[in-house]
Amino acid sequence: MLEKIDQIMKELIFSFGYDKASEMFQSISSGKKLRSKLILKIAPLSDESLKLCAIVELIHSASLLHDDVIDESSTRRGKASVNATYGSKNAIMLGDILYSKGYYELTKFDSFICREISKAVSLLSIGELMDVELSKSFNTNKDKYINMIYNKTAVLIEASAKCGAFLAGLDTDKFAQYGKNLGLAFQIIDDVLDITQSSDTLGKPSLSDFKDGKTTLPYIYLYENLDENDKEILKSYFAKELDDSQISWIKSKFNEHNIVQKTINEAKNLAKEGILAIDEYKNDGLVAVMKNMVDREF
Amino acid sequence: MLEKIDQIMKELIFSFGYDKASEMFQSISSGKKLRSKLILKIAPLSDESLKLCAIVELIHSASLLHDDVIDESSTRRGKASVNATYGSKNAIMLGDILYSKGYYELTKFDSFICREISKAVSLLSIGELMDVELSKSFNTNKDKYINMIYNKTAVLIEASAKCGAFLAGLDTDKFAQYGKNLGLAFQIIDDVLDITQSSDTLGKPSLSDFKDGKTTLPYIYLYENLDENDKEILKSYFAKELDDSQISWIKSKFNEHNIVQKTINEAKNLAKEGILAIDEYKNDGLVAVMKNMVDREF
Repeated sequence: MLEKIDQIMKELIFSFGYDKASEMFQSISSGKKLRSKLILKIAPLSDESLKLCAIVELIHSASLLHDDVIDESSTRRGKASVNATYGSKNAIMLGDILYSKGYYELTKFDSFICREISKAVSLLSIGELMDVELSKSFNTNKDKYINMIYNKTAVLIEASAKCGAFLAGLDTDKFAQYGKNLGLAFQIIDDVLDITQSSDTLGKPSLSDFKDGKTTLPYIYLYENLDENDKEILKSYFAKELDDSQISWIKSKFNEHNIVQKTINEAKNLAKEGILAIDEYKNDGLVAVMKNMVDREF
Repeated sequence: MLEKIDQIMKELIFSFGYDKASEMFQSISSGKKLRSKLILKIAPLSDESLKLCAIVELIHSASLLHDDVIDESSTRRGKASVNATYGSKNAIMLGDILYSKGYYELTKFDSFICREISKAVSLLSIGELMDVELSKSFNTNKDKYINMIYNKTAVLIEASAKCGAFLAGLDTDKFAQYGKNLGLAFQIIDDVLDITQSSDTLGKPSLSDFKDGKTTLPYIYLYENLDENDKEILKSYFAKELDDSQISWIKSKFNEHNIVQKTINEAKNLAKEGILAIDEYKNDGLVAVMKNMVDREF
């Protein structure tokens, strides 16, 4: 099914008949398609639901193209990023092409879907800015962090679930709640993995987020639990290239205060609440997606 | 009326309640609003038509924000560009915010409007890429040039006229024709002014386009009219910083072959055809807009 979605995405971009756009589009590696899997676990399989998946993936890809320019990332999904291969300018333009084609195709859907997805993208674009702004200083405010990841990561997942429910004629608010919580849990788990996984598994050095100025939830919890002296030490390590002893110090403090487990529990609570929201539908697939997200090796 | 449009645009961006976005948005200087003037000369003045103007201007501003990053322009409308003031990354993000907010607000309009504007933006994004690609080598193909300026400049003007007509209950195809021709004539005249106006008037050196790799219509016509030897000379000057004698040579060749007048005539023909398309409506305002565009000092 996911190949079919890739095929539709390709057809949409190739429909411009402009070789350079087609060539650059083909250099993007296919993603996990979390949003599409979600839609297809909620809505019946049809040309319509597959097309919606393709549109959401185009929009998601567009946001990643611009993200990679902004974060100066040279890799994406294990391959060279478009900005690395074709330069930042081309990546910006390809992002605009994917966004705009996605929007145009959206207008062929019911206005509910058109509105929900486009609202999500506008919040997503604000979320990207919030992420960059929050990265400028050590952030100890959990609400700001949650609000940022809600906008940057969860809104499009929430909208995908909501629109899937709309196509299926189900309660859109309940599935929106599930999608929102899935998105938040997904991001929190991603932030935990940056701390717990080896650099080999991550494909980047461990604790990269903190070095990149991202005070993710584990760091916010750690900060809350440290004494005044250690708080200052942690802050002094923010957004810096750290040596092994400094990395060890952070990791030992995470252990001492049981921060990773505390953060995972937060994600697990979101997962439970999300599953509960759609409890009446007995949708085993969605329960499994959520559980696989939080019940894993860390 | 134009202040009212600025006000709506501001309200739309301020509605995110995110200070950094509001601050950056306010640094953008207000433009001439060609597209809004067009809409308001076709559609009756109403909250709806003003809102449509604000959306189209948001989208146009978004495209300029990304254009300026891609062209590394440090000024826009006589002020520092957003990329110059806040950096390219912020300009990309602000562009995404303006685009996405514009799209979201569009979904509150009739699907005809939603579709026409979003289709235009997808072609606009392809046009931007075409412009960059064409700038890589000396282009002698007039069709490619016209197709590029159609996408990059004329489609959104065409869609604005078409949607104005839709709001007014008029023949959308006829107004689309007018808008398309206005957009094409506008760009061709802009390309002529880069050659004929003094650097003081332009705010940039004369013949900047050619230096920037843009083989605009006057250069295509000039190339067609030169002998083989001079063709090679012109090509050797492409995309280079030229000295005074080289600039004089180009200008003398333009004069010798009467290229500026030939190019202006092309724009005048487009203008006539555009006016003819809406002849039955006796819309003096639109006739004046078109005439003012082409009947001017060069």
